[in-house]
Amino acid sequence: MRAAVLRQGQMTVRDDVDEPVPGQGEVLVQVEACGICGSDLHFVHHGAAMMEVGARMEGTPDLGRTPPDLSRDVFMGHEFCGRVLDVGPLTDGPAPDTLVTSVPIMVTATGIDDLAYTNLRPCGYSERMLLSAMLTLEVPNGLPATHAALTEPMAVGLHAVNRSGLHAGDGAVVVGCGPVGLAVIAALRLLGVAPIVASDFSPARRNLAVTMGADEVVDPRDESPFAVWSRVGGSRSMATFEAVGVPGMLDEVLRVAPAQSRIVVVGVCMQPDAITPFYGIGKELNVQFVLGYDPTEFAASLHSIAEGDIDVAPLITAQVGIGDVPRAFELLADPEEHCKILVVPSR
Amino acid sequence: MRAAVLRQGQMTVRDDVDEPVPGQGEVLVQVEACGICGSDLHFVHHGAAMMEVGARMEGTPDLGRTPPDLSRDVFMGHEFCGRVLDVGPLTDGPAPDTLVTSVPIMVTATGIDDLAYTNLRPCGYSERMLLSAMLTLEVPNGLPATHAALTEPMAVGLHAVNRSGLHAGDGAVVVGCGPVGLAVIAALRLLGVAPIVASDFSPARRNLAVTMGADEVVDPRDESPFAVWSRVGGSRSMATFEAVGVPGMLDEVLRVAPAQSRIVVVGVCMQPDAITPFYGIGKELNVQFVLGYDPTEFAASLHSIAEGDIDVAPLITAQVGIGDVPRAFELLADPEEHCKILVVPSR
Repeated sequence: MRAAVLRQGQMTVRDDVDEPVPGQGEVLVQVEACGICGSDLHFVHHGAAMMEVGARMEGTPDLGRTPPDLSRDVFMGHEFCGRVLDVGPLTDGPAPDTLVTSVPIMVTATGIDDLAYTNLRPCGYSERMLLSAMLTLEVPNGLPATHAALTEPMAVGLHAVNRSGLHAGDGAVVVGCGPVGLAVIAALRLLGVAPIVASDFSPARRNLAVTMGADEVVDPRDESPFAVWSRVGGSRSMATFEAVGVPGMLDEVLRVAPAQSRIVVVGVCMQPDAITPFYGIGKELNVQFVLGYDPTEFAASLHSIAEGDIDVAPLITAQVGIGDVPRAFELLADPEEHCKILVVPSR
Repeated sequence: MRAAVLRQGQMTVRDDVDEPVPGQGEVLVQVEACGICGSDLHFVHHGAAMMEVGARMEGTPDLGRTPPDLSRDVFMGHEFCGRVLDVGPLTDGPAPDTLVTSVPIMVTATGIDDLAYTNLRPCGYSERMLLSAMLTLEVPNGLPATHAALTEPMAVGLHAVNRSGLHAGDGAVVVGCGPVGLAVIAALRLLGVAPIVASDFSPARRNLAVTMGADEVVDPRDESPFAVWSRVGGSRSMATFEAVGVPGMLDEVLRVAPAQSRIVVVGVCMQPDAITPFYGIGKELNVQFVLGYDPTEFAASLHSIAEGDIDVAPLITAQVGIGDVPRAFELLADPEEHCKILVVPSR
C-alpha cells in the first residue's frame, strides 16, 4: 500500500509498504484524514537533534518505547481519523465501517509505542493503519472524518488551558496563532476566558484567531499584545500562552508578562534558548511547560467538535493525497497561505 | 555617624554620614546586627547590569520606588535588627529600648522605598537607621539581635517553600546550600517535608545542611542529588529548589528533574542563561521563580526563630564591625570559610 515516510531527512512516497494485519487487541482502519502537524515539520528538520536532547534528558518514566531509527524509513502522521475495516482475533473492538479516532499510541505486549514517529508500523500518512482497539473512540453525530482529524491538535490546546490554572472570567494573551495557538484560543473561549488577546504577524492567522474566539488581535510589529492586554484586561488574573516556539520568544514574554502571572509554553522550541532569569525572579513568574494531553482531554475535544462547540472547519486550508505530502510540508512553511493541511489518502 | 556604603563599585566606610532624625511615622533605631546577603555581593559586582535589566522589564506595578544612583553613595544592609532610640512626632511606635526588626522597606508620603539599595537614607550597615513605625516587629522571647537579624534570609526560604506547593509528606531536592538553600531546608523541615536531599560542593555547607534538617547531603561531583532522590524519594511528590544562581544550573536541573515536577528558582542568576526548552516540554516541568517574601512570612520566620523551631546560630560564622565590611565582602567569596557574616556596629 501507499504511505508517505521520512527517509534521509525528506518526506518520500512509497507504494510498497506491507499491508498491516491486525493482531489481537488491534483494529485495522482505512485512514480517511490525517492532519499535518507543526511537530512533523520540526521532526523532519531537527529529528536527530530532538532525539539527542531526549537521550540526554533524565527523570522520565521508562515506558518501553522504541525510539525511531532515522537511518530507516520513519512512519509519521498522528492526527488521524479512520474507518474500521477489520478487527483482530479475540478482540472486542468497534464494528466494521465505524468511523474512529484514537490517541496516537499503541498498547502492545511489550509496552507502549507511539503512532507519531516510528519504524515499526504505518501511521496516519498511510492508506491503512492499525490502532489499539481499547483506545479507539467512535466519532459521533455524523461528524466528518476531516473534522474529527482535528481532535488531536484541539486536545493540545485544551491540555495547555487546563494546565494554565485559568478559570472562567480570567483573561489570556496568546502569542502565536498557528494551529496550536488557535487550538488554545478555542479552548479558552469554551472555558469562558475573556478577554483573549492574540498576536501573530500573519493577517490570515489573526483572522482565524478572531474566528476561533479571540477578542483582540494584534500584529506585534504594531503593538505588543501585552500593551493591548493592559488596556483591555483590567486587573483580571491572566495567563500567557507562548505558542510560537522560536528562540528568543520566551525571553521576550518573560520581559513583558505581568508580575505574578503564569506563562504556558506550548510552542516547541527545539533549539537551546537564552533567557534572562532576572525577569522571572523580579516578577515571580511561573513557567509551565506543557506537552500533549491525556485521553480524557482527547475525548473531550472530540466531543466539543462533534457537538459544534468548536468549529474546526475554518482551520482546514487544504486537502491533499498521500502523493502530495512532500509538497504539503513545503507549503506549510508559509503561514500566510495555510493553517491545517489534511492528508486524505482517497484523493 | 559611621556607615559602610557602596561607592564606585566598592564597599567603603564613611564616618561622616548625617545622623538620621525620625519624622512622623518613623522610628530611629541603633543597629545591633545586620547580615550580609549574597544579593549584596551580587549588587556590588553587577549592580549596573541588574538595574539595566530591571529598567527593560515591563509588567510590574509602579510603587514609586526611586532606583539608586550608582554614581552616588548607595546605602545597603537589609537583614537588620535594632534597638529603638527615638520615635518621630505624632507617631504610635514601639517604646524606646525595644528590640525590633522590620521588612526592609520604608513607607513614605510619596510611596514605598526600599531599605536595601538606596541613596536616600542609611540602611543596616550603619550605626543608626530609620524604620517605618507601622512595619516594626518587636523581637520576642529575649531572642538576641544577632539571631533576629536572620529573620530576613529565613523568610526568603519560607516564601520559596510556600510557593513550591509542597505539603507535609512530600519530598525535596535543594541544589546549593548557601544561606538561601539553608533557609529553604529549615522551612522544608518545619513543614514536614522529607526526605530532603541537598547538594553542595562545600563540606562545611553540607554539614550545615544536615544541621538545618537535610536528610541526605551529597557532593555533586560524586553523585547527582537526583540520583540520591531516586533512591530515597520513592514515588513521592517533590519539588526542586535551585539555590545556586549561576549560569547553566537551571538547564542542568531541567535536564535531570523528575517529570511533572516543580522547580523553584530562588538562586538569583544575574547573567543571561541558556536553557533547553525541550527538557521542560518533554517532562512538563513547572518553573516557579520567586523573590522575597510577604510581611506575614517575615513575621512567621521571626516567630519560628524566637520559639526555637529554627536554630539559626550555626549559620553565623563571623561578626564584624562596620569598619570590616569591605573585608567581609571579600571573605564571603569563599564558601568553605563562611556562611552568614553579621555586621555588629558596636564592635
